[in-house]
Amino acid sequence: MAPKPQKDQLQSKSPAEFFAENKNIAGFDNPGKCLYTSIRELVENSLDSSESIRELPLVEITVEELSRARLDHIRGVERHDRLDEALYDDFETEAMRKKRVTREAREQEKLKKVIDKKGEGSSEAAAQRRVIENAKKATQSRGSLFYKVTVKDNGCGMPHKDIPSMLGRVLSGTKYGVKQTRGKFGLGAKMALIWSKMTTGLPFEIYSARKGAATKSHYILDIDIHKNEPNVHKEETTPNTDGWHGAQLSVTIEGNWSTYRSKVIRYLRQIAVITPYAEFSFFYRAEDEKNNMRLVFRRRTDVMPPPPGETKHHPASVDLELIKRLLAATPANNMVAFLKREFDCINAAYAERLVGEMRAGVDWDTHPRELSDKQVVRLHQLLHEARFSEPSGDHLSPAGEYNLRLGVMKELRPELIATYQGDVRTFEGHAFIIEAAVSLGGKDVKPGINVYRFANRIPLLFEGGSDVITKTALRRISWNAYKMNQSSDKIGVFVSLVSTKIPFKGAGKEYIGDDVEEMVAGVKQAVQSCCSQLKTKIARAQAAREQKQ
Amino acid sequence: MAPKPQKDQLQSKSPAEFFAENKNIAGFDNPGKCLYTSIRELVENSLDSSESIRELPLVEITVEELSRARLDHIRGVERHDRLDEALYDDFETEAMRKKRVTREAREQEKLKKVIDKKGEGSSEAAAQRRVIENAKKATQSRGSLFYKVTVKDNGCGMPHKDIPSMLGRVLSGTKYGVKQTRGKFGLGAKMALIWSKMTTGLPFEIYSARKGAATKSHYILDIDIHKNEPNVHKEETTPNTDGWHGAQLSVTIEGNWSTYRSKVIRYLRQIAVITPYAEFSFFYRAEDEKNNMRLVFRRRTDVMPPPPGETKHHPASVDLELIKRLLAATPANNMVAFLKREFDCINAAYAERLVGEMRAGVDWDTHPRELSDKQVVRLHQLLHEARFSEPSGDHLSPAGEYNLRLGVMKELRPELIATYQGDVRTFEGHAFIIEAAVSLGGKDVKPGINVYRFANRIPLLFEGGSDVITKTALRRISWNAYKMNQSSDKIGVFVSLVSTKIPFKGAGKEYIGDDVEEMVAGVKQAVQSCCSQLKTKIARAQAAREQKQ
Repeated sequence: MAPKPQKDQLQSKSPAEFFAENKNIAGFDNPGKCLYTSIRELVENSLDSSESIRELPLVEITVEELSRARLDHIRGVERHDRLDEALYDDFETEAMRKKRVTREAREQEKLKKVIDKKGEGSSEAAAQRRVIENAKKATQSRGSLFYKVTVKDNGCGMPHKDIPSMLGRVLSGTKYGVKQTRGKFGLGAKMALIWSKMTTGLPFEIYSARKGAATKSHYILDIDIHKNEPNVHKEETTPNTDGWHGAQLSVTIEGNWSTYRSKVIRYLRQIAVITPYAEFSFFYRAEDEKNNMRLVFRRRTDVMPPPPGETKHHPASVDLELIKRLLAATPANNMVAFLKREFDCINAAYAERLVGEMRAGVDWDTHPRELSDKQVVRLHQLLHEARFSEPSGDHLSPAGEYNLRLGVMKELRPELIATYQGDVRTFEGHAFIIEAAVSLGGKDVKPGINVYRFANRIPLLFEGGSDVITKTALRRISWNAYKMNQSSDKIGVFVSLVSTKIPFKGAGKEYIGDDVEEMVAGVKQAVQSCCSQLKTKIARAQAAREQKQ
Repeated sequence: MAPKPQKDQLQSKSPAEFFAENKNIAGFDNPGKCLYTSIRELVENSLDSSESIRELPLVEITVEELSRARLDHIRGVERHDRLDEALYDDFETEAMRKKRVTREAREQEKLKKVIDKKGEGSSEAAAQRRVIENAKKATQSRGSLFYKVTVKDNGCGMPHKDIPSMLGRVLSGTKYGVKQTRGKFGLGAKMALIWSKMTTGLPFEIYSARKGAATKSHYILDIDIHKNEPNVHKEETTPNTDGWHGAQLSVTIEGNWSTYRSKVIRYLRQIAVITPYAEFSFFYRAEDEKNNMRLVFRRRTDVMPPPPGETKHHPASVDLELIKRLLAATPANNMVAFLKREFDCINAAYAERLVGEMRAGVDWDTHPRELSDKQVVRLHQLLHEARFSEPSGDHLSPAGEYNLRLGVMKELRPELIATYQGDVRTFEGHAFIIEAAVSLGGKDVKPGINVYRFANRIPLLFEGGSDVITKTALRRISWNAYKMNQSSDKIGVFVSLVSTKIPFKGAGKEYIGDDVEEMVAGVKQAVQSCCSQLKTKIARAQAAREQKQ
């Protein structure tokens, strides 16, 4: 362990320490939000896992409420009676108690008067009831709330020996390739574990089996935050008698269900909308049975879109460091083979032309690992100046206009709708596709612009204020020009972005920054295209109405 | 170096690799923003450094434009003529050229017609000129722009041997204590270096001297991103003949001055406003001399506020992991000494009462490093249930109502203004203070709510949409109730938050999340207090006007 730092002393943090101390960067802001994000991260891992083996996803989520007493029982911690009452935050002296009782009586008196004057159901009576309620809440002791979250899937499972590193080490994962996946940072599930260590001290419990495997893995582990290393409490394999494959993870954390319940439900509804080939079952098991809740989002289609494929970087916008990394790691032993093998949109003939243009002492048979720094700079320049065809985007798996349309119909039931799928574009060597839908009307839709955001087919519910989609919808579209009124019409804007890399502004995958020019242009163009179609439809609808009259 | 990963293979990232690949999380979004953030991070380091030795800060910033040719000269890279013209992105076949020339002629023809019909200065003519301009831009080749950024200060300098780790290792720093500092993540300057490695490949150049030191340090170094280790190219010490102390850092990066110039200037103006005891000089040296720019923000006072002090965690909201870390690192050898030494607001007598309440096998003479996991859980419970006095906040250094008022006057020249400094509050064991000013009127102020945000005395200019201050000002204040109209009145809202920890939502320190309840409550209360004062002033001004009539 680190010694107590001296003033001015240089310290280093492990990435796990960094994210534990700055957990809000990963979407772990307050206990309620932490519960939400933990569920979300586990669900998204499950979807990636099932899709990777082309299995129609089946995701079972259980959130179990734990009282402090039950939690202590699980932890094997004894409950001690209070000895020194005055030590506690909720301790009342006799004088304090009298004061409180008098105040409470006065507020009740007030309520009675209001009811006499304005009636039982009046808004004034409701307001006074809220005052009483809030005062009561304020005197209740700071109570923490705890939950055991379990997510089970029918995915690919994890290799037995990799499980500790996959779940007990931050910035470690299997999804760092150039591929469209929901997870990407190697952070989500581990953040849930870090949060459990910070609040309950309880470890992860994991069951996993690979497809066709004869054994199941069972682990109990947590993470040594200072060392960023897994810490295995228990490890065993048991016979896989029922042929199950997938993973089941349980984590026990502090949370706050009542404040984030609606967000969790909204998240599940939207992810079900954008993943119609998956089934989600959700069970909230309360301490008091009558507060239990069960939700099932059934599979609406058995047709799974082609899963995203692994691809290569597009050469037009790779940076110097990425080129160096590719040079260092390639199995190719000459430059022509290197260019052809490591980049998208370069075939053998083109690779030869590029190498011919290099000069600076580089020939086709120069070994990639022998390039000097200056030669790497020359290669970087050339790749940035040369012409390449646009990536095909075959490796991406967009939601599809059909699904987007279905989603809009389900969420808003609008009168008019237009959808659009944009061409493949690139930024920093990564391809992306933007799809959009714009709708007008709908009985329960609020007037104004209602934005729904999706990135690599996960709904983004938080931090919308600075998101490229929200900002584009609110500021960069001249709604008037499309015969729509931005404040009084009921406008729905759905945008789905898929890419081998999403430029999220935080590790919590909550919103996409508004500073990547290529994305801004893409989103704007997609929404405008929908608006143009809608304008025609609006005009047609108007004409039809006029003709009727 | 890592071998080419197999499908599904488990990979680990160094923190430097993680932030290089996800640089937008640290405020490095596009080249223009990267230039802005690099300047900002270096300036903020300089201020922290000067203040740490109670020196009135003097910060000199130089941004030098570099053409590709000059950059190549610096890098010692030869420029090669094109051999295979058709390989290049800006290559035009004869047919393409003809098509472009015809199109250009047609657009010019159109412009002439518009001018004939609507006049030289008409908006239609301007629109057509823009079309021509944009077409011209689109055919120009993708040109990168490069800048050498140098920031020099009169701060504490860096110990010679620590310089490589302080600047060439991500998540390493001297400001991880419980102390209010502008920098905190151990990331900013290193991100500028990572960005330079990605775009120009050029290293950091550093000069540094400690106060009273006989020698100056000179380093040229960069960072091995894969290993997260410094890589020293040159290291020397020279006699410090002129008695200078401080640091001077130069980094050469891709950027875009024209798109972020106004943001850089706005940043400097606001940091000068909130740091009136510092002097900032800024020099932009363009390739073409006539585009040079010089700005000086003079020191407006020699009185420096008491610098922030190092403090201890407040016991009421520390988490399990933090308690474990403190137990592991303390030099105290019994529990009473531990509690007294490591926490704010616990004196010896109170520590004894707390230990007396612990039980679970813990006595006053239990050694802190011998606590079992269960005993740690018990301590965590007890700290969360016990009553503690609020932290004094003496260790914080708020901007001061006076400075805030000055800032508002300078920025908005309003008719009415009210300011407020809130009490010390805590979240997660960290104390914070919120100060606010609300103003009404001002000749050049836009109608509506104009929000200015500061955190630990740095202005926050980006990602305002989801910030706790913006959201509070726009959604949680009933402006009507204070006789103000949120859309037609010219309202200025300045909020400054200081803390030993700011819950930024990204490592780029761009905005404070809206999910930390304590902060939300604090910001709301501070703004409301200003509004209440303002309401009285508005009423008084109204009465005065009416009496006059």
